Amino acid sequence: MPAYATNMRMKFPIVALALEIVIIILFAVFVTYDDGKSHGHDPHSNATHHEEPRPMELYPMFQDVHVMIFIGFGFLMTFLKRYGFSSVGFNLLLAAFGLQWGLLTQGLWHLEDGKIKVTIFKIINADFSTATVLISFGAVLGKTSPVQLLIMTVLEISLFSINEHLVAQIFKVSANDVGASMIIHAFGAYFGLAVARVLYRPGLRNGHDNDGSVYHSDLFAMIGTVFLWMFWPSFNSAIADPGLTQLTAVINTYLSLAACVLSAYAISSLVEHKGKLDMVHIQNATLAGGVAVGTCADMAIGPYGAMLIGFVAGIISTVGFKYLTPILASNLGIQDTCGVHNLHGMPGILGGLAGPSSSPHTGDAAMQAAALASSLGFALVGGAITGFIMKLPFWGQPPDQNCYDDSIYWEVPEEEEEHEESLAHADHSKNKAEV
Amino acid sequence: MPAYATNMRMKFPIVALALEIVIIILFAVFVTYDDGKSHGHDPHSNATHHEEPRPMELYPMFQDVHVMIFIGFGFLMTFLKRYGFSSVGFNLLLAAFGLQWGLLTQGLWHLEDGKIKVTIFKIINADFSTATVLISFGAVLGKTSPVQLLIMTVLEISLFSINEHLVAQIFKVSANDVGASMIIHAFGAYFGLAVARVLYRPGLRNGHDNDGSVYHSDLFAMIGTVFLWMFWPSFNSAIADPGLTQLTAVINTYLSLAACVLSAYAISSLVEHKGKLDMVHIQNATLAGGVAVGTCADMAIGPYGAMLIGFVAGIISTVGFKYLTPILASNLGIQDTCGVHNLHGMPGILGGLAGPSSSPHTGDAAMQAAALASSLGFALVGGAITGFIMKLPFWGQPPDQNCYDDSIYWEVPEEEEEHEESLAHADHSKNKAEV
Amino acid sequence: MPAYATNMRMKFPIVALALEIVIIILFAVFVTYDDGKSHGHDPHSNATHHEEPRPMELYPMFQDVHVMIFIGFGFLMTFLKRYGFSSVGFNLLLAAFGLQWGLLTQGLWHLEDGKIKVTIFKIINADFSTATVLISFGAVLGKTSPVQLLIMTVLEISLFSINEHLVAQIFKVSANDVGASMIIHAFGAYFGLAVARVLYRPGLRNGHDNDGSVYHSDLFAMIGTVFLWMFWPSFNSAIADPGLTQLTAVINTYLSLAACVLSAYAISSLVEHKGKLDMVHIQNATLAGGVAVGTCADMAIGPYGAMLIGFVAGIISTVGFKYLTPILASNLGIQDTCGVHNLHGMPGILGGLAGPSSSPHTGDAAMQAAALASSLGFALVGGAITGFIMKLPFWGQPPDQNCYDDSIYWEVPEEEEEHEESLAHADHSKNKAEV
Repeated sequence: MPAYATNMRMKFPIVALALEIVIIILFAVFVTYDDGKSHGHDPHSNATHHEEPRPMELYPMFQDVHVMIFIGFGFLMTFLKRYGFSSVGFNLLLAAFGLQWGLLTQGLWHLEDGKIKVTIFKIINADFSTATVLISFGAVLGKTSPVQLLIMTVLEISLFSINEHLVAQIFKVSANDVGASMIIHAFGAYFGLAVARVLYRPGLRNGHDNDGSVYHSDLFAMIGTVFLWMFWPSFNSAIADPGLTQLTAVINTYLSLAACVLSAYAISSLVEHKGKLDMVHIQNATLAGGVAVGTCADMAIGPYGAMLIGFVAGIISTVGFKYLTPILASNLGIQDTCGVHNLHGMPGILGGLAGPSSSPHTGDAAMQAAALASSLGFALVGGAITGFIMKLPFWGQPPDQNCYDDSIYWEVPEEEEEHEESLAHADHSKNKAEV
Repeated sequence: MPAYATNMRMKFPIVALALEIVIIILFAVFVTYDDGKSHGHDPHSNATHHEEPRPMELYPMFQDVHVMIFIGFGFLMTFLKRYGFSSVGFNLLLAAFGLQWGLLTQGLWHLEDGKIKVTIFKIINADFSTATVLISFGAVLGKTSPVQLLIMTVLEISLFSINEHLVAQIFKVSANDVGASMIIHAFGAYFGLAVARVLYRPGLRNGHDNDGSVYHSDLFAMIGTVFLWMFWPSFNSAIADPGLTQLTAVINTYLSLAACVLSAYAISSLVEHKGKLDMVHIQNATLAGGVAVGTCADMAIGPYGAMLIGFVAGIISTVGFKYLTPILASNLGIQDTCGVHNLHGMPGILGGLAGPSSSPHTGDAAMQAAALASSLGFALVGGAITGFIMKLPFWGQPPDQNCYDDSIYWEVPEEEEEHEESLAHADHSKNKAEV
Repeated sequence: MPAYATNMRMKFPIVALALEIVIIILFAVFVTYDDGKSHGHDPHSNATHHEEPRPMELYPMFQDVHVMIFIGFGFLMTFLKRYGFSSVGFNLLLAAFGLQWGLLTQGLWHLEDGKIKVTIFKIINADFSTATVLISFGAVLGKTSPVQLLIMTVLEISLFSINEHLVAQIFKVSANDVGASMIIHAFGAYFGLAVARVLYRPGLRNGHDNDGSVYHSDLFAMIGTVFLWMFWPSFNSAIADPGLTQLTAVINTYLSLAACVLSAYAISSLVEHKGKLDMVHIQNATLAGGVAVGTCADMAIGPYGAMLIGFVAGIISTVGFKYLTPILASNLGIQDTCGVHNLHGMPGILGGLAGPSSSPHTGDAAMQAAALASSLGFALVGGAITGFIMKLPFWGQPPDQNCYDDSIYWEVPEEEEEHEESLAHADHSKNKAEV
């Protein structure tokens, strides 16, 4: 297989070390600590409080988001039977790299005295920027090398930061996408789908032996699901205005997710053979309520409004997994490993549409539509270009037969060989005994 | 098997969707956001502080409790070899539904302007209300359908809310059960035991192949154990009076649990074959200290007093698992899958008894006894009635041979064919041997 | 095997119960609750704030540290194929005991009115003291009985508390080891290595069948890795001065760890066969940045300075795992099961050396050197003495062939018999096919 140079021995270390060294130099030039005098877009730092500023006030929120990024996304993708090392391991790699890159690319729009002054607010946003990549990673899971994924991370976060800036500054809707339904979830999903389209593999049309779960891999995935589910209220409220607005974002997300669980379970049972629940739906569609309520989480949509959004999102997402994903794969050539279209794509758009209809301000609808269009445009065009760059033949992409398999990029314990070997031994000794 | 209509295809979706729609309507009528002017029973909101109110102050506590409910209880029950999907999956379903129902049934006693105004304090209590159901779920684990479990959730949380109101308003002991030893732990345990008694299955008298663990299922269960253990100080202090009282509740729980670990390990080794430790004890009895110290967690019982309570609870709980659970099953017809009697039942009563003897106020003992009696009465009578309703033959209860088996309600990855194949081999060789 | 009395039935319960009873008595004499009037070394309690003191302010930090101790360390060590019960189970036992002992031995240096007044600050430090033991546990993992480990806990935490006091009061560098690179990480590592040296087992020179991972045990270990990685900013900032200093400690640790991931992944790929990543490196070396930045985490080393430290730590640690650990085992007789020398030892010394070069105060270098020397001296001498005490022949140390095997101290589910059975069947059917 000369076309597939999957040996990472030189490529990966060189790319990883070079990226990190460049980033450290850029940090030396541009980044410093917050000095407590920060002004501007961080609603938590421009203290209208009488009390002294509290630079650590958002720290528990940050840690919740941090857990979502590293445990939540990481373990959610461990459902594949032989791809757990890559799922949680590449997730750690991409997020650790991405948060540094995101801190830079987001911060460059908001320099103070020529510097990016790091606050908790900014590291929350850096973590957020990695979420886009982790969502896209789900679409191409099992089919890319770590070098390809690092390239995707650089490009996607750069584009994310531009789109985020446009949406916030030009369309002025930052306050209307507090939970980032559009700029993170829809953006990350359609970016990933565009990449997946470009990397389409006809050889996987009829499935792959390793593209499925085993019993315990599904349980590992539930660790990711449940941590995402629990901390989503923090995701949607972390950068909301402090006080009652933040409380509203928490309550709306909490209730939307609760309602979403009921509809996802119900529809999963309704569409499956003999009414049995499907782990793919439970692991994913139960989270769609968090995505969909994102844009309007901090608005007074009423607790029941939040629940309705979650309820509808759970239905759309489950139906998408059952009926739409196979169609995307067979008709459009989009092989979406984790079904990110159903968890982040459609619910993200639902959120983008639910936002303006909930907003009290007139004129918002047009701006919101522009924001959604911008996010989708950047995602689809950017994703396609990124896909073509990733398709260049020297990044170590795995051949079809090695897809969804850790052992191409990881040392994997010798279980199967051992097992066969021990069968052989057992065989042997028994034969001997019989003799 | 015409008696067992375990196909959920219509029943479960209809029940789940109907319940959720009813709840959304009730929320539209009764529930709104906190407006920051709330008064009343929430010690954190009636600001005697000079500073502005902090509606998010309890949010980190809430998230700790949230993790206990969804990861803690969910994974604790994954110890069974073939029931992990149901353990963590039904746990999510019941808790997501229960928290909505609990928010309503608890809130109806405290309407303000005809509305339930949602605060962090109230969603902590909503999470608490689901704990009762998850405890009862442990008693019947592996032997009920999701429809039966949803019915149990509706009824148990309704009764919990009535009993909680009685205990708090009539017996005025709410401040004396801060960690809810009685109203959650003992209530949930005896409710579940009553249900289990009514659902007694003679066919499981001699055990069941799937009623046991495998190596990795025991490790998954330890995720639940350790998260419960770590965050229990939050459970017992979340709704305590702010400041030093809350600190006392944290310290007492922290120390009680630490002492409990030592006694649970020691007794496990003492009662087991060759002094080996038993995972069932480690997974459960190490938590009994958190239950038992609950009622008096916020009282000045002294750090050593908390440790003594934990120490005794660890002994009682381990001895219960070893000697009492088999007796309950064989003599009383109570098949308590998770041994909730040992983790929540007896330690909960211990807590209820330890409370008044620690209280500085005279007259408390009688009220506390009344509160304990009320909790046990509601649990036993309510559980029995709920059991009879759950026993009606159209809720899809599994037949004996399918107990403790995910595959009756879940799509399970195809390992089982492999398994069946090896069974076939086993079969075969046996036949041959007989020949 | 008369030399190995590994039956724990009497020994372990007696030791565990006796230790706990002694501790409860000591707590009754010495320990009480904080009364809010505490002064002294706790930077968070001597309120220069205008506002009222907040005894719970550090509680979210405490919970992060708590998760690192019980989930982080516990699951990190579950990588061994048959030692998961012991890893997470003994971790819980030792930490639960150690935190009580640490609260006492640390508190005795700071009595107020003859009492240890428990605050959140003090229970964070109690948790910290257990970290030393859990690090040392990693060095001897799989080769000691629970009684030996309890003895190690008593002695190591006692010595830790003396060294910590010396370093803080005599060398006045407490403020220069906020993340405890020296007094926890280097101390714990070299203490454990000294114990491992004394307990050297020539019989394990050529390895052991159970001294390796299986696929899912490596995934369980990643739960530990990721929780440690995420919450390390809390570890290094929990006891820092409040406000901007604490923020600096968070940011430095966050960035050091992110840079460390890139270098650890790159070097792992560089040194491994065909450029494949090695789970041992990913699970451990990605954390070295948190250790190494510990000492100077709260200093203004600049974000890029923190990243450089993490970058170097990731390289040193990975290279250590690949090349140094085998040399230590073969040439020095130090069998370091988890490679704590690479994760805590060398990065801890790196931190101790990075500290004074970052400090603005002259004269600090000498004191810092004295602190490092004191920590290493206490660790090596104390560890050796502790090792000799642990080597006494009546503590139930396992024979070589039972090392790395839960079943010597735990009831383990009967998989292996099943497994053998199915091997026998496989055998059989194969024979038949051949016929």
